[in-house]
Amino acid sequence: MAFGWIDEQAELRRRAGLVRTLRPRSAESPLLDLASNDYLGLARHPEVTEGAERAARTWGGGATGSRLVTGTTELHAELEQALADYCGFEAALVFSSGYAANLAAVTALAPHGSLIVSDAGNHASLIDGCRLARGTTQVVAHSDPEAVGKTLYTHTGEAIVVSDTVFSVDGDAAPLAEYAEVCRERGAGLVVDDAHGLGVLGDGGRGAPHAAGLAGADDVVVTVTLSKSLGSQGGAVLGPARVIQHLVNTARTFIFDTGLAPASAGAALAALRLLRREPERAARARAVARELHTRLTAAGLEAVRPDAAVVSVRAPSPEEAVQWAAECRAAGLAVGCFRPPSVPDSISRLRLTARADLSEAEIERAVRVIGETRP
Amino acid sequence: MAFGWIDEQAELRRRAGLVRTLRPRSAESPLLDLASNDYLGLARHPEVTEGAERAARTWGGGATGSRLVTGTTELHAELEQALADYCGFEAALVFSSGYAANLAAVTALAPHGSLIVSDAGNHASLIDGCRLARGTTQVVAHSDPEAVGKTLYTHTGEAIVVSDTVFSVDGDAAPLAEYAEVCRERGAGLVVDDAHGLGVLGDGGRGAPHAAGLAGADDVVVTVTLSKSLGSQGGAVLGPARVIQHLVNTARTFIFDTGLAPASAGAALAALRLLRREPERAARARAVARELHTRLTAAGLEAVRPDAAVVSVRAPSPEEAVQWAAECRAAGLAVGCFRPPSVPDSISRLRLTARADLSEAEIERAVRVIGETRP
Ligand SMILES: Cc1ncc(COP(=O)(O)O)c(C=O)c1O
Ligand SMILES: Cc1ncc(COP(=O)(O)O)c(C=O)c1O
Repeated sequence: MAFGWIDEQAELRRRAGLVRTLRPRSAESPLLDLASNDYLGLARHPEVTEGAERAARTWGGGATGSRLVTGTTELHAELEQALADYCGFEAALVFSSGYAANLAAVTALAPHGSLIVSDAGNHASLIDGCRLARGTTQVVAHSDPEAVGKTLYTHTGEAIVVSDTVFSVDGDAAPLAEYAEVCRERGAGLVVDDAHGLGVLGDGGRGAPHAAGLAGADDVVVTVTLSKSLGSQGGAVLGPARVIQHLVNTARTFIFDTGLAPASAGAALAALRLLRREPERAARARAVARELHTRLTAAGLEAVRPDAAVVSVRAPSPEEAVQWAAECRAAGLAVGCFRPPSVPDSISRLRLTARADLSEAEIERAVRVIGETRP
Repeated sequence: MAFGWIDEQAELRRRAGLVRTLRPRSAESPLLDLASNDYLGLARHPEVTEGAERAARTWGGGATGSRLVTGTTELHAELEQALADYCGFEAALVFSSGYAANLAAVTALAPHGSLIVSDAGNHASLIDGCRLARGTTQVVAHSDPEAVGKTLYTHTGEAIVVSDTVFSVDGDAAPLAEYAEVCRERGAGLVVDDAHGLGVLGDGGRGAPHAAGLAGADDVVVTVTLSKSLGSQGGAVLGPARVIQHLVNTARTFIFDTGLAPASAGAALAALRLLRREPERAARARAVARELHTRLTAAGLEAVRPDAAVVSVRAPSPEEAVQWAAECRAAGLAVGCFRPPSVPDSISRLRLTARADLSEAEIERAVRVIGETRP
């Protein structure tokens, strides 16, 4: 029978305790949220939701076509300008998701015959970009500029180095300045995904590349998502105008995809304006993360020191991680639970996200619940 | 220099007259729109934009995380149920885009060792799905069930056949019933992309698979987009519940992507309700397409007889196609212009989309402008 094999796989997952299920949340969830990527607490900020509402009212429910046909509005152009300005790049291009932006950047910048040096901890969307690209991918050890440098010297043609700026699982930051240095020695381009850096790292949340002094560099291309700190949906590529024009002309997830919905563009634009006005939100998200880490460690838990707003706590096994997260939930606390196959190293963890708008009392409560439910 | 090679490519594009540029439209564009994929004229329908507004207000600007973490709301579940019910499938799964839904369906249903038989005219997102899948892809002649059947017999393991239901360039329909037959003979699965069928084909716009008697079949999986007839953004996979569960557990563009923005889910749900209440919109879109075709042909233009709501008109060359579309635009008419490399066969065309809400006078005006500006 067609698709018969998926039942065997389902049975294996069941036996391994790895079945994933969707749990729809209600609009007024009573849970304390340390699981979302809403780092600045903006997804439900009235200015952001009003930005979405106004855009839907003005522009409609959808963009109605590819950005190259009817799908580009003045709102998209305004958002692109605002993103480029805020993060310090010459130009920006908005996509329907961060995933699509990553597929676009990697595939369009790694032509046939080129080398892609990809960090072993990279996000699935960058990995899929590498798989789709015409260039040849070499995976290198996690956050190892020396390995990157050596790999670049194995190849004589065009090359790019591809990395997350903040790794989504453990929340550790990539050595961006060192990467830029080895790239420049070799004339290679640097393509980094700042999904977890935008809004959190750098002056006013301008992102990890800005913090590393790489904003506006002609050999650096940055991808961001509008779905985390900006509380919306969508993605963007930031870089030199010539690179952006190249993407407009060649990136399949740009050309063959409907433009970002106006409401999502409007929400992201409103969030960006809010961040410009209240840049201290970024530092607050980092401070909350550090405090979570300090308290968790003091409680004897094994947490990774956070470089941004993600705090990862080790669990002994996938089953215990699931059980731990379920007990947190029962105690009113939503935490992420990462386990195989969505982790690069087979280590299961709870993943906590610091939100800029968490109160001291909420932080205290979160740490208490995590400590009390530990396996 | 890093990215130096893109300047050479830009120069080649310039010389070939193939440079693409973004033209942001204003909210009150005076153009008559025959270029968007808003087949039912719902993108700016007040019920649809109110659906988006209400959802943003209730749920926030973004879904805040992967559907498996915090990104599934009761709104997503409601939309999935409504899509499955309307189109006649057991279950549905919503994605951030139709592109993502296609990547998910093909990659998750074509494991290592399997065969993917892919129509030569398939959309870029299906092609990228084939490229990312572990299975081996065989491209077959466009809309040729015999070629599909023969290719299926070259392989003994698992197999799927992948096709658009309505091809986006020429608007022609795939031979779905014949595909289903050859698939069944061989125990292969059929995966079809109904992006241009939903809302247009079948009883009340239930889609091409419904029209072909394939709704709810246990060996058929359908992908749809929320960005065309439903006037929003997003995509979905429809099929047997066991296939949907398989996608929840394995599809990378589901697991590693932020959930669809509430506003887009709300807009799509409102559009679907409208379609259920006013099912005649689907037939009207088809009638407008047939009328466009009849009048264009009567005016001596070479148009493809439409199977759905897309009417394609041949242009002599890419340059003339661009010029033609520009002259239409100058005369107040927006039409699509498809040319290499976004066409499978190097033929350039104007692409017109019939909207259910076009008036007789608008149809007449459109045909007159196209005739008067022909190269
Ligand atoms: C590092 C990273 N890059 C890209 C993405 C994809 O972005 P989006 O969800 O906006 O598609 C994510 C998460 O979703 C991510 O964690
Ligand atoms: C046939 C087809 N499939 C899939 C897609 C992608 O859907 P979306 O734009 O919603 O990502 C499109 C167009 O955009 C299309 O024409």
